[in-house]
Amino acid sequence: MNQTDLTAVLRKYKNGDISENDMINHLRSFSVENLGFAHIDHNRIIRKGFPEVIYCEGKTDKQVKSIAEAILKRSNTLLATRASKKTFEYLNKRIPGLRYFLEARIITTKKAVVSNSKADGQAVVVTAGTSDIPVAEEAAVTMRVYGNKVTSINDVGVAGLHRVLKYLEDFQKARVIIVVAGMEGALASVIGGLVSKPVIAVPTSVGYGASFGGVAALLAMLNSCASGVTVVNIDNGFGAGVAASLILQSD
Amino acid sequence: MNQTDLTAVLRKYKNGDISENDMINHLRSFSVENLGFAHIDHNRIIRKGFPEVIYCEGKTDKQVKSIAEAILKRSNTLLATRASKKTFEYLNKRIPGLRYFLEARIITTKKAVVSNSKADGQAVVVTAGTSDIPVAEEAAVTMRVYGNKVTSINDVGVAGLHRVLKYLEDFQKARVIIVVAGMEGALASVIGGLVSKPVIAVPTSVGYGASFGGVAALLAMLNSCASGVTVVNIDNGFGAGVAASLILQSD
Amino acid sequence: MNQTDLTAVLRKYKNGDISENDMINHLRSFSVENLGFAHIDHNRIIRKGFPEVIYCEGKTDKQVKSIAEAILKRSNTLLATRASKKTFEYLNKRIPGLRYFLEARIITTKKAVVSNSKADGQAVVVTAGTSDIPVAEEAAVTMRVYGNKVTSINDVGVAGLHRVLKYLEDFQKARVIIVVAGMEGALASVIGGLVSKPVIAVPTSVGYGASFGGVAALLAMLNSCASGVTVVNIDNGFGAGVAASLILQSD
Amino acid sequence: MNQTDLTAVLRKYKNGDISENDMINHLRSFSVENLGFAHIDHNRIIRKGFPEVIYCEGKTDKQVKSIAEAILKRSNTLLATRASKKTFEYLNKRIPGLRYFLEARIITTKKAVVSNSKADGQAVVVTAGTSDIPVAEEAAVTMRVYGNKVTSINDVGVAGLHRVLKYLEDFQKARVIIVVAGMEGALASVIGGLVSKPVIAVPTSVGYGASFGGVAALLAMLNSCASGVTVVNIDNGFGAGVAASLILQSD
Amino acid sequence: MNQTDLTAVLRKYKNGDISENDMINHLRSFSVENLGFAHIDHNRIIRKGFPEVIYCEGKTDKQVKSIAEAILKRSNTLLATRASKKTFEYLNKRIPGLRYFLEARIITTKKAVVSNSKADGQAVVVTAGTSDIPVAEEAAVTMRVYGNKVTSINDVGVAGLHRVLKYLEDFQKARVIIVVAGMEGALASVIGGLVSKPVIAVPTSVGYGASFGGVAALLAMLNSCASGVTVVNIDNGFGAGVAASLILQSD
Amino acid sequence: MNQTDLTAVLRKYKNGDISENDMINHLRSFSVENLGFAHIDHNRIIRKGFPEVIYCEGKTDKQVKSIAEAILKRSNTLLATRASKKTFEYLNKRIPGLRYFLEARIITTKKAVVSNSKADGQAVVVTAGTSDIPVAEEAAVTMRVYGNKVTSINDVGVAGLHRVLKYLEDFQKARVIIVVAGMEGALASVIGGLVSKPVIAVPTSVGYGASFGGVAALLAMLNSCASGVTVVNIDNGFGAGVAASLILQSD
Amino acid sequence: MNQTDLTAVLRKYKNGDISENDMINHLRSFSVENLGFAHIDHNRIIRKGFPEVIYCEGKTDKQVKSIAEAILKRSNTLLATRASKKTFEYLNKRIPGLRYFLEARIITTKKAVVSNSKADGQAVVVTAGTSDIPVAEEAAVTMRVYGNKVTSINDVGVAGLHRVLKYLEDFQKARVIIVVAGMEGALASVIGGLVSKPVIAVPTSVGYGASFGGVAALLAMLNSCASGVTVVNIDNGFGAGVAASLILQSD
Amino acid sequence: MNQTDLTAVLRKYKNGDISENDMINHLRSFSVENLGFAHIDHNRIIRKGFPEVIYCEGKTDKQVKSIAEAILKRSNTLLATRASKKTFEYLNKRIPGLRYFLEARIITTKKAVVSNSKADGQAVVVTAGTSDIPVAEEAAVTMRVYGNKVTSINDVGVAGLHRVLKYLEDFQKARVIIVVAGMEGALASVIGGLVSKPVIAVPTSVGYGASFGGVAALLAMLNSCASGVTVVNIDNGFGAGVAASLILQSD
Repeated sequence: MNQTDLTAVLRKYKNGDISENDMINHLRSFSVENLGFAHIDHNRIIRKGFPEVIYCEGKTDKQVKSIAEAILKRSNTLLATRASKKTFEYLNKRIPGLRYFLEARIITTKKAVVSNSKADGQAVVVTAGTSDIPVAEEAAVTMRVYGNKVTSINDVGVAGLHRVLKYLEDFQKARVIIVVAGMEGALASVIGGLVSKPVIAVPTSVGYGASFGGVAALLAMLNSCASGVTVVNIDNGFGAGVAASLILQSD
Repeated sequence: MNQTDLTAVLRKYKNGDISENDMINHLRSFSVENLGFAHIDHNRIIRKGFPEVIYCEGKTDKQVKSIAEAILKRSNTLLATRASKKTFEYLNKRIPGLRYFLEARIITTKKAVVSNSKADGQAVVVTAGTSDIPVAEEAAVTMRVYGNKVTSINDVGVAGLHRVLKYLEDFQKARVIIVVAGMEGALASVIGGLVSKPVIAVPTSVGYGASFGGVAALLAMLNSCASGVTVVNIDNGFGAGVAASLILQSD
Repeated sequence: MNQTDLTAVLRKYKNGDISENDMINHLRSFSVENLGFAHIDHNRIIRKGFPEVIYCEGKTDKQVKSIAEAILKRSNTLLATRASKKTFEYLNKRIPGLRYFLEARIITTKKAVVSNSKADGQAVVVTAGTSDIPVAEEAAVTMRVYGNKVTSINDVGVAGLHRVLKYLEDFQKARVIIVVAGMEGALASVIGGLVSKPVIAVPTSVGYGASFGGVAALLAMLNSCASGVTVVNIDNGFGAGVAASLILQSD
Repeated sequence: MNQTDLTAVLRKYKNGDISENDMINHLRSFSVENLGFAHIDHNRIIRKGFPEVIYCEGKTDKQVKSIAEAILKRSNTLLATRASKKTFEYLNKRIPGLRYFLEARIITTKKAVVSNSKADGQAVVVTAGTSDIPVAEEAAVTMRVYGNKVTSINDVGVAGLHRVLKYLEDFQKARVIIVVAGMEGALASVIGGLVSKPVIAVPTSVGYGASFGGVAALLAMLNSCASGVTVVNIDNGFGAGVAASLILQSD
Repeated sequence: MNQTDLTAVLRKYKNGDISENDMINHLRSFSVENLGFAHIDHNRIIRKGFPEVIYCEGKTDKQVKSIAEAILKRSNTLLATRASKKTFEYLNKRIPGLRYFLEARIITTKKAVVSNSKADGQAVVVTAGTSDIPVAEEAAVTMRVYGNKVTSINDVGVAGLHRVLKYLEDFQKARVIIVVAGMEGALASVIGGLVSKPVIAVPTSVGYGASFGGVAALLAMLNSCASGVTVVNIDNGFGAGVAASLILQSD
Repeated sequence: MNQTDLTAVLRKYKNGDISENDMINHLRSFSVENLGFAHIDHNRIIRKGFPEVIYCEGKTDKQVKSIAEAILKRSNTLLATRASKKTFEYLNKRIPGLRYFLEARIITTKKAVVSNSKADGQAVVVTAGTSDIPVAEEAAVTMRVYGNKVTSINDVGVAGLHRVLKYLEDFQKARVIIVVAGMEGALASVIGGLVSKPVIAVPTSVGYGASFGGVAALLAMLNSCASGVTVVNIDNGFGAGVAASLILQSD
Repeated sequence: MNQTDLTAVLRKYKNGDISENDMINHLRSFSVENLGFAHIDHNRIIRKGFPEVIYCEGKTDKQVKSIAEAILKRSNTLLATRASKKTFEYLNKRIPGLRYFLEARIITTKKAVVSNSKADGQAVVVTAGTSDIPVAEEAAVTMRVYGNKVTSINDVGVAGLHRVLKYLEDFQKARVIIVVAGMEGALASVIGGLVSKPVIAVPTSVGYGASFGGVAALLAMLNSCASGVTVVNIDNGFGAGVAASLILQSD
Repeated sequence: MNQTDLTAVLRKYKNGDISENDMINHLRSFSVENLGFAHIDHNRIIRKGFPEVIYCEGKTDKQVKSIAEAILKRSNTLLATRASKKTFEYLNKRIPGLRYFLEARIITTKKAVVSNSKADGQAVVVTAGTSDIPVAEEAAVTMRVYGNKVTSINDVGVAGLHRVLKYLEDFQKARVIIVVAGMEGALASVIGGLVSKPVIAVPTSVGYGASFGGVAALLAMLNSCASGVTVVNIDNGFGAGVAASLILQSD
């Protein structure tokens, strides 16, 4: 029940077309619909150009397509994460105007106002190693689709500290930093210690043996001695991108 | 080596008082000292009234006292976390002007500009249950010592959803929300789904059996289907407080 | 040895056709057979139309076929779970009258009195996300084969609380609710807090990283702050369906 | 906002005392209050004599007392679980009419209609060993405070199968069975295989070494080959008692 | 119902004193009692001097006393494991003729035919370190109370291989070997490789850090490259002692 | 250095052909060879017809072939476990006289004195379910190749207790019992409680979700309340077969 | 900025070509470049013929090729680990002068001064079983590419202790020993107890069931009762090879 | 059997006083004694002043005293680790000439040649935080008792990178570095990346929540992206000290 419907019912009640009892019963069910109001900030997000999101893993291509079509009826934009190339090709034949970020495994629309500039440094996404880049790209593309400018810095793991320090100025200029690292995940602590900005750490499943699919990095990041570091799920570039976007737009 | 020292050395070199070789050697060691420059934002933090922090667990009362005295030589303020009442009493006899937050287990100075107002809602710290309050207080007092105003909302776990929803407006007005919950930690997802603000989730060790000392809540929060939720270590109210402070001051 | 056989033996003994010693020996072995009596309620289940069950995973198509044929000699019905399409096709060529539920991966017989109606709401099976549906369907089809009417509600995860609340009336009308959720599994707590009905929670392996194949959801559900929630194994839709059927028929 | 308040507001609106806009704003906040309606079945529980519950662990005696007093203002009854003898003694001096179940660690009121009869067998609570009894008692007393009659059968672990089988008739007569077992937790499977009734399995922390504080029993119960077994948290006798009560009253 | 009772009932039936129906009902309950027959080998154990066993942990002194008295009505002997000195003292004042093995934490009766000789080498109990001795003693005393002769060899961990090899002849003469080791538990593999006798490995909780309370030793023993090694629970000297006794008496 | 070599050297020394010093040096290196003597019981095993064993997993077909050929130079028999059909076919083309047990994944020689009789019941291998049979067959074939007679009993899981009890006499007649079970592994406890014989429990990886690849069954078996149960690694049918053979031949 | 650049800048400053302010700014950025000086020992490594390293897993063939080409511009040598045969073939067609170690999965250059001699025993790499050889080869080839001579001893697991002892002299002559073992990993303790040399233990993922992909061996090695044993990640032959090289060259 | 005994036996044999058969039997048992020869390097250690070691945890004061006295009969020195102050006081009253390092919890003798100098930098022991010092002291005192000079650097965790870099020269001068760190353990990677020396990482149990008693640091160190880092057990300062001593003396 949207606000128009509510107004209509209220007027009917005022006019005596429905009884007080019926009005209360309407409101009871409406108490749920009303929660739609509570999510008005979601509407705000949409107005700001934030897309709704489809998590593609575990969904059939057909399911993804149906959801995408439903979203595109209401919106010019779309954010489909964990989308294989095969899924993109399936959708691309059936829905016009799509765009695919291969490394980030993200599908969006060409109409989505995606910032491509890597120059502006409000947000920095930094990886410890080359293999962490897909997760970092998921974060960066998410942020760009959400309207933010992002600087990507790759392969600056702590084993070569001078590589990290070379970008100190970039880190200090940023308003939020996403650190993407697998193996021992130490980069989050090192960067968290160098700057006094919110650092979102993304452990990745890069590694083998006792990395336990990213658990080593996850635990390291949760135990970071650099305060101000918060953590998202292993390989969750998307979640980090959303959290960073919310921080940038928190005012 | 500070900038004055550097200038002095450079001038000596220019004047031929030290050789090129010596100059290069000076610079080599100086490359470390130079990093002091890199930490200029730490100085900024201090100027903003941010205290240095002592983590008391695993330190003797005597060690805490020595570190506290060293800090108080340079600063009017202090933040000592995980401080037992016994530690506070030990320090209080030896260092004048201290103040203790019993539930938060935090020692600070009376001079620290701690905001006591709970009315302003820029930041909200919310707990699922009564037993989560000490961790939440650690977060809230940390934020207040860092100069922020914090609203505390307690005991609104998801088993009684109406309790959560009653504070919807508080959540929506806030610029950042810290959710503190043990057991199944579902509150982070529910609040993360209701608002589009950065949510920092703090799992607590409240629970028994298969809560595994907070692991159940930690995993739930890391897997939150509400994007925008980031997580800190189990019972790490301090870390959440610092991260939230950095978000509020990120500009 | 069934009761008829027992009576026959007893009469032989009475008539002196077998000695006291032989009678006692008969009874010794019969003490095991007698446990068949103890399972008289299994017979009751069969009379009520409950099928015997084959768990297909880890069995060859040939083994499944042999067991199915043995069951169908005694019964009009059959419930084969975790059956791949390949297994169904193998059986379908060799055993007449079979029926396959693709999403639920269940084979049953056409003669099985499967309730197809989704309208009646004695039992509700609800999922947090689209990817949880196969597990939910395993539960729902199991319940239907067991003669129950089931309402399916899908994709109402807690990140959009209004979606859950929209179905409040359905939840309150139900006599038992099966909640199927992966990731952080918070839906079980939210629904368990909204109604005072038995809630059976099924964690699913939907998720990645620190979901650890469903462990995060499993732990969350076991630690649910909403009392009255019981839990089954990860992805065990069948077990939840049986438990719910037993609850509905417990009188 | 209760129904009386709602009616008052609606009438004001009808009378033109408040504008349509104001009415809608009222309803927005009211959408939360309205959820109180959604919990009307909780009221039903209270009418049926179901007490509200305090989980005492992690609360100070003083906190428990305050909550208990608040509950007793609205209700004749109370259920405080995990209450130490010390807590009971603290409360007993300050609140009249309390009653303590030592083994179950439960405080309730003398006015609570607690069924003491162990004869009626609608529900059975059964333990594998003597050390599991406190958890079983938590379940049994909870059920009795909730108005149910419970039969307790103790120390019938599977290592002596004849002990289990001796009570076969009790199991078959029951409408719901709670199985409480530590160590390898096999009793749940054995009983679940003997009867076609809902079985709620409670793993206990009884054991040592690779029992990992109840994890061995928990996993065994989750993997029970006897379908129809559902599981609660380790040592969660209370949760099992509530779930069994809901099953008995589900109609 | 023992065989005498059964005979009596059968004769009543033959004589027409009870009806066929009543006879069948008798037999139904008797099917359980009959399992007493099935446990006739337990009786054999008792005849061989095997005591019944009380696991004291998690039981009150009073409970232990009641069970002990019940056992001693039927038997001259007793085996109470994990008994603290305090428990022994409680019992010793109330039950005459008890005997306590301090290191093994075992209470038995003075009448129990406990072999004290360490000279005979049918069974060997060997420890890797001094701290493993209490668990080894639990195994050795159990075996002795069960009537076996046991050789104890202590502190021959693999870090000093010559210590192990010195006792090679003892190992080769034994019919069964119990290896008790904490930390990395390598002794089981080394001895298992030296002899072709059944080796029962007992991991102990001796160690720290990544020994995880005996898990490291447990895993090592389960993965022993020396085939013929079987494993019991961490610190379960009693279980190893029983298993070894059964092997010695298996014929 | 074999005994012939040793004798030769000793005689040379006696004859003065080598000095005392050289003799001592010979003996030093020989101290290692001497350990061959220590393994004289291995020779005994070989004399008894025990084959040497190749664990095929992780070895190339070519490596398996080389080791097999080396063994067959010294022996008429062979035991290659975890051998895929592909590996057997590779070997079978290159080495004459081989024989393959498909379900047990074991290669042996046709000359190996493998007992095929299932009638004799000295040892029993029993499975909880059909899917456990391959592991049980690995145990049974191992025992048969080692010269023992084995009775196989399959699919008698505890969910249908009457199935277990039907074979009570078989269990009681056996000198050793191997119990193979996945899921909750309760069968080991039930059988261990019914008989007073050594029971070797083999957890299998049969199951899903919280069975964690056999961990649930492993833990259940380690925590068995039936004393006398020892455990081997998950799916380690071979190890159980060797241990049982050693028990049968321990005298 | 290298030393030449630095000298140039310093001279410009001395000559007044750049101002003091500019000089300080140069030095600030240079503080990072300066850290290159700190890594002068890396240069030493390069001078000694140590190659830079590419970890190929998780990188595309194209990425590996680009990095390899960049390295080969500065160096005659290369060390690419975890390189599949496919990756080697891709590179081999595009970069001249490469060489592949199949078992070690290492690509290096033909110009790399790889010691092939297995005779010199400064370092020993020893495996418990045949399946551990690939990891051992990764260690050995790494050491050889780093200019060391390595003796490889394979398949001397503790189940046949005489095999280990046969090589005692080799172990005692070595300056460092790398022990590679899966399953229960006991070989590290046994060798660590036999010699007083640094032992680097490499757990491998060889095993099944409760080996948990190498965790059992890892824990055993970490808990080794033989002091002086240090451990690297599961299957990390490369890391062990580097550590051993550093030990040999530590002076 | 020592060499004198061996010579005696050989001569008897040469003289015909014992038969060839008897000689061979002597040698068989002697093969074990001979391993004493194999441990000649242990004697070398003793000659170099290396003490034997008592691990005090899990031993009674009386046991520690007995072992200490036995050692001191053969040696001037002693190394007892994990010794509580209480244990030291017990020993100190009964054994003359002892010395206690409180923080390191080590007892040694006053005669032990313990290097007290912190100035010489052959070996560096470095901690991330103040709470890691006891473990570091265990390592440092061990090394000093073993005759090495050690530099201690404390509280240079990565959260303040400039603190680490200040000691770069110390790290580069050292021949071996022990890094002691709890929480996320990142210091090992950072130092391992700065120097090309063997780095031994000691994870400590310092931390809380998801540090899991040192597991987070342990995993981080095992997954270090800086090659050349090896790891010992959590809190195992002694083991690190021994390993570093062996490296320094490996030649």
